[in-house]
Amino acid sequence: MTIAYRGTAYAGWQRQANALTVQEVVEEALARLAGHAVSVAGASRTDAGVHAAGQAAHADLRADLPARALTHGTLPFLPHDVRIVAASSCPDGFHARFDARAKEYRYRLVRCAVLSPLDSPFAARADPELDLGRVRAATRFLIGRHDFSAFALAGGAHTDPRRTIQRAEWVEEGERIEFRVVGDGFLRGMVRAVVGTLLEVGMGRRGADEFAVLLDGGQARGAAGPTAAPEGLRLERVIYDPVLA
Amino acid sequence: MTIAYRGTAYAGWQRQANALTVQEVVEEALARLAGHAVSVAGASRTDAGVHAAGQAAHADLRADLPARALTHGTLPFLPHDVRIVAASSCPDGFHARFDARAKEYRYRLVRCAVLSPLDSPFAARADPELDLGRVRAATRFLIGRHDFSAFALAGGAHTDPRRTIQRAEWVEEGERIEFRVVGDGFLRGMVRAVVGTLLEVGMGRRGADEFAVLLDGGQARGAAGPTAAPEGLRLERVIYDPVLA
Repeated sequence: MTIAYRGTAYAGWQRQANALTVQEVVEEALARLAGHAVSVAGASRTDAGVHAAGQAAHADLRADLPARALTHGTLPFLPHDVRIVAASSCPDGFHARFDARAKEYRYRLVRCAVLSPLDSPFAARADPELDLGRVRAATRFLIGRHDFSAFALAGGAHTDPRRTIQRAEWVEEGERIEFRVVGDGFLRGMVRAVVGTLLEVGMGRRGADEFAVLLDGGQARGAAGPTAAPEGLRLERVIYDPVLA
Repeated sequence: MTIAYRGTAYAGWQRQANALTVQEVVEEALARLAGHAVSVAGASRTDAGVHAAGQAAHADLRADLPARALTHGTLPFLPHDVRIVAASSCPDGFHARFDARAKEYRYRLVRCAVLSPLDSPFAARADPELDLGRVRAATRFLIGRHDFSAFALAGGAHTDPRRTIQRAEWVEEGERIEFRVVGDGFLRGMVRAVVGTLLEVGMGRRGADEFAVLLDGGQARGAAGPTAAPEGLRLERVIYDPVLA
């Protein structure tokens, strides 16, 4: 399944005992549709407040339901801010998380004095003085395999802090700028810590070379910049081998 | 002032006795800032659920406040879905509604099976089978001065149903399409009735020539198509003579 959601009202993707999560509402909608308990495995554990345009997830259903049953049949059971936008059957043994090859995240910012309410659900405000040239110069260092310890929030329980970034770029459209990053995986809070640190470079508070040093590893989380606000971030898509997708 | 708002939670711009409106929350925020009752005149009476990226409005304040006082000083007093995004002093006698030369409205649609929650606050769903070529052929007839009686909702209290459309076009970006229309004024519900009727043309249920006939005037509202959903519509900007803007 491809699942899209506004993260604003949720404590992230992954089911929790005392907070409402996207996984829980999707599992409950599918259970009502299928008539039996359903466990849904998502590719990415998006954090509280983070959105998804294309979260990927799989579930084992007893009946062989057509795609339309999942996309349209769940509409009465899902809240307005969560939708299964596409679905298909998958090979036996397919796992949405373990088979994911790469993920793309996007972080949207608007350079303005006051953020418009038409932007604020899905973007954060940036200072109009932000120097995007400086940001781009530092962003180039992201490409390749690095130790992202300095950019990991506590609680991620990652054993190996190394991740490979295949693509990292800033797209500019008037006052709107968007960071697009593709990697084989991301530590907890990593994209937002990278964005928070790149914004410090863009405001002249750090050099691009100082950003590069953080990618050498062995640095505590406090060495990088602040975690950017969740509303600007979205999981854009999860990438699989063509044979599985 | 330039005011931006998400219309979702409001019964439109204009103050009403028994429903929350944008005008009311702006007037109350300015009153708290200025320390006296403030009356705000908006350029456009947007309907319930309709958004604005650039509503224009003026108010008489006793003190000569700098722009930043209005944009930033009102932040503690405004709900999160309404913002004064820009402000400036204006000539004596300026009136946001009567001095407006033209307005631009935009209506956003996504051609898809299930509308993503990342689109649904600010767009409506269109059928993927929609023929944009047919829509565009009919849209051309809008340019010029026409009698829009067939496209007016009751309750607008307009004396003259004629309006001049200077620009009307559809911008396509992948599955997203957006209707952009600039005119000297718009009857109540007019943009959404025009969109609803153009969509019928695009689905092959009306001919472009039938759409053109509706613009000749003297037709009842029932002759045109349905009123498109409010969430797709936004007031993009209000246009003034350069000397006033």
